[in-house]
Amino acid sequence: MKILVVGSVAYDSVETPEGKRESQLGGSASYFSVSASHFTEVGMVGVVGKDFRDEDLRMYESHGIDISGLNVVDGRTFRWSGDYLQDINTAVTHETQLNVFAEFAPSLSEKHAAAPFLFLANIEPSLQLRVLEEMSSRPKLVACDTMNLWIDIARPSLAELISKVDILTINEGEARQFTDEEHLPSAAAELLKTGPSTVVIKRGEYGAALFSDKFNFAAPAYPLAKVVDPTGAGDSFAGGFMGYIAATGDTSEEGLRRGAIVGSTMASFAVESFGLERIRSLSREDIEERFKAFVELTRFQPIDGSNGLPLR
Amino acid sequence: MKILVVGSVAYDSVETPEGKRESQLGGSASYFSVSASHFTEVGMVGVVGKDFRDEDLRMYESHGIDISGLNVVDGRTFRWSGDYLQDINTAVTHETQLNVFAEFAPSLSEKHAAAPFLFLANIEPSLQLRVLEEMSSRPKLVACDTMNLWIDIARPSLAELISKVDILTINEGEARQFTDEEHLPSAAAELLKTGPSTVVIKRGEYGAALFSDKFNFAAPAYPLAKVVDPTGAGDSFAGGFMGYIAATGDTSEEGLRRGAIVGSTMASFAVESFGLERIRSLSREDIEERFKAFVELTRFQPIDGSNGLPLR
Repeated sequence: MKILVVGSVAYDSVETPEGKRESQLGGSASYFSVSASHFTEVGMVGVVGKDFRDEDLRMYESHGIDISGLNVVDGRTFRWSGDYLQDINTAVTHETQLNVFAEFAPSLSEKHAAAPFLFLANIEPSLQLRVLEEMSSRPKLVACDTMNLWIDIARPSLAELISKVDILTINEGEARQFTDEEHLPSAAAELLKTGPSTVVIKRGEYGAALFSDKFNFAAPAYPLAKVVDPTGAGDSFAGGFMGYIAATGDTSEEGLRRGAIVGSTMASFAVESFGLERIRSLSREDIEERFKAFVELTRFQPIDGSNGLPLR
Repeated sequence: MKILVVGSVAYDSVETPEGKRESQLGGSASYFSVSASHFTEVGMVGVVGKDFRDEDLRMYESHGIDISGLNVVDGRTFRWSGDYLQDINTAVTHETQLNVFAEFAPSLSEKHAAAPFLFLANIEPSLQLRVLEEMSSRPKLVACDTMNLWIDIARPSLAELISKVDILTINEGEARQFTDEEHLPSAAAELLKTGPSTVVIKRGEYGAALFSDKFNFAAPAYPLAKVVDPTGAGDSFAGGFMGYIAATGDTSEEGLRRGAIVGSTMASFAVESFGLERIRSLSREDIEERFKAFVELTRFQPIDGSNGLPLR
């Protein structure tokens, strides 16, 4: 197993301008692992209730995801309901039921504790910290995600977590909220000072931007004719990004750049259908073709010896 | 003269979080021509009042801009005042004084009417149409810009104008407003149906996106540590974009892609200082260096024979 993810596994009820779904499989760990599973072996740590559907467990397994760390306990699976009717980029939460997540205390098997790559998907920061502490040795690369709620109610433990990771993935609005910097490069600079060597700022339909001490990289979003359901786009991005890096072992600047485009590729698929429908049924050809579309979307002729700018 | 621009020449009073300026030289034609002048010979058509400063005329001339079409008439120069205090991306207009622009009726010299490239910068659409009709033959490429005001109060003539240009540059919000399409690729598709072969959607700090029947291209914005004054960013983009295309004569897909990066380069300089301060004092080295920074900002390894994605 190359990459371990801890995060939420949920049943979501969601409504978008394109329709609605009741109790569809979701959660940060679900989107991340299915996305990453196209590239590498993933182990998932989380908790679900007795109501969790067998077919969903089998779907993870069919993607080669190691679910030995997914505890099934008495009670109901975490549930979220919301809509994107006003603004396709912003969820309005109707209800969050923590259910079995209220008592979740992750504990890692020996195999999971030795994973060389670790993604701490969005859950309560103290749980993310606990998983990081349970690792038997420092992974080659640790990344984490978070959400506005934890900035509001758990800032000290979130700040501690961020100080201990290599890569932070965070939404644009959350980066502003956390740093109190309106201007994004300034927010990224503040975040870099607090610990991570790379900050990935997710900008929804505008793509993602990587900031580090050594380089910046801008990954656009793919211009889709229609966004059906934006739920899980960020976690699908992280799954492609970290899945690519874990599969190649390439944590260099080149690896991070290419990983961000793989992440954008996976995010673009995620939002094309409700829930995991699209990213769980992708072929290798689908992924290669969309990656190549990103090459086309961004390429232009650089300056070289015979091809300078026509400057006066 | 390679490219003709018609648009506003103005004295702006502007306040941003970085300071304020009274009566600084501005207007769509000013930003466009100074930006384009780094690449090619520009002719400017517009009108100013008797209060227009000699030093400003000399600044244009020092950039090799042909101001024989800039009429100096009785009255005061167009004036705009506004601020970007609430949101650095959105101007709040305090006052607009049309002054000499109220009676402006552009008329082209023989030389100007034969220009091979034409940019119809933001002014009243019927004036843009009039200039297009005054051209002695169809230019190789015609582009136009506009603003929300004309969508509100002059939609029929704006629609007629758009149907007659090759390239439309338009802000994201205006594209949504004009088409009533919330989703940007859909808005671009609607705009392409109405006439232009390429639509350039300007997204401020998110960069610009080119849409055509044949290809899409995403140009990021340069991640600046500080935006001092966003006034004129769109016109500076257009100046770099059209200036590059006019200088090379390359209206192919490759020319448009590279032109968009040149445009983003010039826009990134424009917002670094108040008014025209930065873009009027750029060296060739400044421009080349920033263009190369865009190469670094966007490059990643594509798929080739020996370098596929690690797909399972």
